[in-house]
Amino acid sequence: MTEPSAPIAVPAGLPSAGSLPSTPAVLVDLDIARRNIRRLQDYADTHGLKLRPHIKTHKLPDMARLQLAAGAVGITCQKISEAEAMLEGAPEIADLLITYNIVGTSKLDRLKALARRVRLSVVADSAAVVDGLSAAFADAPAPLAVLVECDTGAHRCGVATPAEANRLAHRIAASPGLVFGGLMTYPPAGGEARVEAFMGAAKALIEAEGLAVAVISSGGTPTMMDAAHAPVTTEYRAGTYIYNDRSLVARGACAWEDCALTVLATVVSVPAPGRAIIDAGSKTLTSDLLGLTGYGHVLGRPDIVIDQLSEEHGRLVSEDAIGFAVGDTVRIVPNHACVVTNMVDAVHVVQDAEPRIAPWPVAARGRIV
Amino acid sequence: MTEPSAPIAVPAGLPSAGSLPSTPAVLVDLDIARRNIRRLQDYADTHGLKLRPHIKTHKLPDMARLQLAAGAVGITCQKISEAEAMLEGAPEIADLLITYNIVGTSKLDRLKALARRVRLSVVADSAAVVDGLSAAFADAPAPLAVLVECDTGAHRCGVATPAEANRLAHRIAASPGLVFGGLMTYPPAGGEARVEAFMGAAKALIEAEGLAVAVISSGGTPTMMDAAHAPVTTEYRAGTYIYNDRSLVARGACAWEDCALTVLATVVSVPAPGRAIIDAGSKTLTSDLLGLTGYGHVLGRPDIVIDQLSEEHGRLVSEDAIGFAVGDTVRIVPNHACVVTNMVDAVHVVQDAEPRIAPWPVAARGRIV
Repeated sequence: MTEPSAPIAVPAGLPSAGSLPSTPAVLVDLDIARRNIRRLQDYADTHGLKLRPHIKTHKLPDMARLQLAAGAVGITCQKISEAEAMLEGAPEIADLLITYNIVGTSKLDRLKALARRVRLSVVADSAAVVDGLSAAFADAPAPLAVLVECDTGAHRCGVATPAEANRLAHRIAASPGLVFGGLMTYPPAGGEARVEAFMGAAKALIEAEGLAVAVISSGGTPTMMDAAHAPVTTEYRAGTYIYNDRSLVARGACAWEDCALTVLATVVSVPAPGRAIIDAGSKTLTSDLLGLTGYGHVLGRPDIVIDQLSEEHGRLVSEDAIGFAVGDTVRIVPNHACVVTNMVDAVHVVQDAEPRIAPWPVAARGRIV
Repeated sequence: MTEPSAPIAVPAGLPSAGSLPSTPAVLVDLDIARRNIRRLQDYADTHGLKLRPHIKTHKLPDMARLQLAAGAVGITCQKISEAEAMLEGAPEIADLLITYNIVGTSKLDRLKALARRVRLSVVADSAAVVDGLSAAFADAPAPLAVLVECDTGAHRCGVATPAEANRLAHRIAASPGLVFGGLMTYPPAGGEARVEAFMGAAKALIEAEGLAVAVISSGGTPTMMDAAHAPVTTEYRAGTYIYNDRSLVARGACAWEDCALTVLATVVSVPAPGRAIIDAGSKTLTSDLLGLTGYGHVLGRPDIVIDQLSEEHGRLVSEDAIGFAVGDTVRIVPNHACVVTNMVDAVHVVQDAEPRIAPWPVAARGRIV
């Protein structure tokens, strides 16, 4: 696996270190992001899949615009407040799926307000959620499309069997204010065969009783290039692919040079020959491990392990001499890009065509409701 | 260990669930926080220790006010931008210690601006940091107090030996624009004996060469009630004690009823008899484990393990029936309170004397620079 050569302080295309933001800072290379968008869209186009990117990774209306311009059919959000932030920043977004059980009066009211602004669909995995949606939308000007969430092995949300999916699909279809929108799953990585089996069986049951399954939505970046191995899928949701991260390099889904998001940090202490401390801790890199050892990859220094994070300190250790001086800068590919963009008010966007770094406020940061 | 009885939806003192914020939300019980402040201040007063609370836990000017009113001598911040936010919100703060190596021109400029507004001290653990501070403050109206950070076993920052502390103390004293302010350490939990040995030896060396050691600052909530076991200490820094968390209950430092901060979450799915999914994931509870199993404690339900977090989903599992329905609310004591307040724009403050929940914007949230 190739990677840019030893410690990179200044991203390519920048005139000098003088224009770098104060550290720690999250940098996004827009050229790489554009290339990542193109790559997955091309795959989807080749295999007749519709692409509906998940905005959880970037949380940025302008990145959603790039994804839609490349050919995406709409966007995916997890929470209502994320959807609100995206529509606020990019009102031209026309089609939005919220892959979450919406529960409770105040959220249902906000969902109704969203439905007046965009072609909206949501998911449900229980009669309780369906009944809440129906009560809210019974008097709405247009029915809400509801997909049945199916558990194809991730054991998070979702109905457990095709028979349950069938029952819930018909309950949706029979509920005032709702239309049955199809099937949705968040599969385990490499779960294409299970997606094909579960969704195929559910679709057959549902259609045998006279109800069309318009959409079968699957997702996940790690095995996105195998999405076509579950040909029952009509739409695909992926988020992390736009930036990539260390977890995806570790899975072989991309290379270091495909990682658009890096954390720029400064060495503040070199207290021992094999140890350096940087000014990025868990409040920047987060404690997400995703099964990996260490909290990120220092570009150009595969010998280094980030073995410990405090909130504002990252500890870099090496069996060799660490070779840094106080004031040196490093760039780190984090384990998990999505959670890193949630830690900062702005990411700093670089591109070859622009000689300066542009701060992009992270519009949907902290939108957890 | 006692704890409030089975699932608590509404904190004590609130009139009804109707006034609860949309979930997930971070609740802070102000009565418990006040009691926690009083408890540590009483300990410090009894043992002749000055208390300098770390604001990293609450990030709130109004909480700092409560700590100062109770008798704290000043506050501790980790980053310059945190100090700026605290002074912006509570300009009456008179004494502020930044326990961080400040490196680089732009940060040194901001440090000089801070020094004009407050009695300021910082730390250093290398000649490089000291020389940078001196270059910045050589022309300042008043000298900057710099404490030597010492590594008493946490192996993060800090000089490694009392002899090195002595050398750096004298370098500070000889540097234009600086005065030697004393010694500081972030000890390992239970490291009182090492603090006493290291700091005692360093103080003896430094004073033998004619330089006074005005302050010896140690810290950490887990063993704060043993701070007096290192009698060389003159000042103590603690942060988490104001809210407490699951990690501190696990260490025996407090009980569940001393936990002022909880995460209010809603059950959105009960897909299997022993499993429920809540709307709080790693974007609220964070992935911090602090050596524990699971991502938090569901109040009143010691049988439940929060065994998996996605960004917006928390998975609750139990060997017994989980016993929740969609729409139920739970309160969770997170593993680590400090990082949770960094995830939200506001915490929701409850107190017995007030019948409503008040949102307090987290002034220093995301202040990582």
